[in-house]
Amino acid sequence: MSSTSAPTGAPVNRQWRLAARPKGLPKATDWEFRTEAVPEPEDGNLLVRVLYVSLDPAMRGWMNDGRSYVPPVGIGEVMRAGGIGSVVASRHPGFTVGDHVSGIFGVQEYAISDGRGVIRVAPETAPLPQYLSVLGMPGMTAYFGLLDVGRPVAGETVVVSAAAGAVGQLVGQIAKIKGCRVVGIAGGAEKCRFIVDELGFDAAVDYKSEDVRAALREHCPDRVDVYFDNVGGEILDIVLTRLARHARIVICGSISQYNNDGPVRGPANYMTLLVDRARMEGFVVFDYATRYAEATQEMAGWIADGRLQSLEHVVTGIERFPETLLTLYSGENFGKLILSVGGEEAKPS
Amino acid sequence: MSSTSAPTGAPVNRQWRLAARPKGLPKATDWEFRTEAVPEPEDGNLLVRVLYVSLDPAMRGWMNDGRSYVPPVGIGEVMRAGGIGSVVASRHPGFTVGDHVSGIFGVQEYAISDGRGVIRVAPETAPLPQYLSVLGMPGMTAYFGLLDVGRPVAGETVVVSAAAGAVGQLVGQIAKIKGCRVVGIAGGAEKCRFIVDELGFDAAVDYKSEDVRAALREHCPDRVDVYFDNVGGEILDIVLTRLARHARIVICGSISQYNNDGPVRGPANYMTLLVDRARMEGFVVFDYATRYAEATQEMAGWIADGRLQSLEHVVTGIERFPETLLTLYSGENFGKLILSVGGEEAKPS
Repeated sequence: MSSTSAPTGAPVNRQWRLAARPKGLPKATDWEFRTEAVPEPEDGNLLVRVLYVSLDPAMRGWMNDGRSYVPPVGIGEVMRAGGIGSVVASRHPGFTVGDHVSGIFGVQEYAISDGRGVIRVAPETAPLPQYLSVLGMPGMTAYFGLLDVGRPVAGETVVVSAAAGAVGQLVGQIAKIKGCRVVGIAGGAEKCRFIVDELGFDAAVDYKSEDVRAALREHCPDRVDVYFDNVGGEILDIVLTRLARHARIVICGSISQYNNDGPVRGPANYMTLLVDRARMEGFVVFDYATRYAEATQEMAGWIADGRLQSLEHVVTGIERFPETLLTLYSGENFGKLILSVGGEEAKPS
Repeated sequence: MSSTSAPTGAPVNRQWRLAARPKGLPKATDWEFRTEAVPEPEDGNLLVRVLYVSLDPAMRGWMNDGRSYVPPVGIGEVMRAGGIGSVVASRHPGFTVGDHVSGIFGVQEYAISDGRGVIRVAPETAPLPQYLSVLGMPGMTAYFGLLDVGRPVAGETVVVSAAAGAVGQLVGQIAKIKGCRVVGIAGGAEKCRFIVDELGFDAAVDYKSEDVRAALREHCPDRVDVYFDNVGGEILDIVLTRLARHARIVICGSISQYNNDGPVRGPANYMTLLVDRARMEGFVVFDYATRYAEATQEMAGWIADGRLQSLEHVVTGIERFPETLLTLYSGENFGKLILSVGGEEAKPS
């Protein structure tokens, strides 16, 4: 697919704007569903027909006021989201109608962009949703978080939580490629089967039905050298009791705490960092922007060799944005969650 | 003082043995005060007349059962403690009667040792209590924790808690020597005055009377690059909200939590590690044993130059061990806390 045709839908722009700052779990009414005219690009801008919207746990944080690694989404603004689209009008010298592009386009059908942070993607190289998954932010996050912050060494034990999620599925596979023993923590038998049987993890722990502490004792006989944490909360606290000496904990997210109405649960067992001479370190993937090409190239090679795969979970229909986003926090989704909003344009290529 | 005379006291060995595992703050009855015969050294051992006993926050942790960086003290065993003494009998080829030595001699007047971990100290070079302070474990802890784990760079802002304590007083001074802006957090006006006026810290925050959050905002306009944490709890959580990008938190202790009866308070704001691309890292000073000489030499030079000073708080009388140890947890003590147990032998040199 590399269509250059104009979108087939009516020339309106359906979009979700932030309406309120949620307390706890967001409700559909925390956003407003609006239909606007498709804007015209001014000089220096381009108009993108959005095809796929990336749904990410971090979106919950962007809805909060306060200091973070990016400014909050303002009330009344289009909800921030990464996406993939095709250029349908361009007054920007760097882009041509028909280009497929990746950028922060928001939860909407059409986006105006000045080109900053927009990169061209090649539909002939990989299915477009993969550019929001293994070849996009989750891929970069897994790659740099694991390799640059976690620094696993062959033979070490790597544990990852939310292991069947967008980032977790990649972290575990990259750790396997690097020669590590890999244990994934995920919710439910189906996810656990998937990461072991399909992705090649050494073991899985089902936090919904198993005693995580006992299971880690069983599956990590040499303790845990690298823990890639996507969830925080109780699971982080349990892993802290199983650290190997000089362990590294990569703080990537804390999805279990994002919708807390009360105070966040801090890791009560953090003093094992002292006992085990361990470190806990956070990172923001944007800091690695100058090295994305290097990571993409290496991961594309692993995909071509059949050593790395990614599962995308594509839900269709922009009107389903709120309910679909919420599946991230209930643990229902599986693989990288993507909203297809392009109608005919976004059919599988 | 380099007396080789036998101790002037009666030849009995008064000692404190662990009697019970405390819950919360220890009570005097958690130890038993015993009087035993002075033991005779067997072949390969030496007998030490203990002169000074080091009282350290970590002693509370040694009283707990469970996995840590050293095994717990067993019920009925002499309470573990570092100390300084003089050799009064030796059947060990490496030590001679009259040698002054440092080692883990326990809270008692006489100790038998096989020489492991025992090093000779020079009373002509520095007062003996300094070998439990700046030239002992607190010195090594401050030096390696700050320089190897915290890695401060000239011009950065370093914050240290328990800043008038054995380790904190040294951390701040070493950071000043390295060209940093230094802010100490301590309890009470007298300690705050001491660290600024006597030790040369740039500012002090009195956590007992000030709003720590507001005071850090005032005194750390460029935020906090290195936080050397001795206390944990609420102060750690507040500092986490003031981190500079790529900040380093050195986990040295968590004295505010040692006597918790309930669960430890974990740092609820730990996700600022992600926002600020920061790391939190623990260490155990024993890992640096091969480099103690290097640290001691450099610090002795700073002492000689008048750039580094240390305050020792010496309390006399082995019978006062429990009540004296507890002053550490109430925040009453000031400088390195030491119990003088040697009677005439331990008079100021």
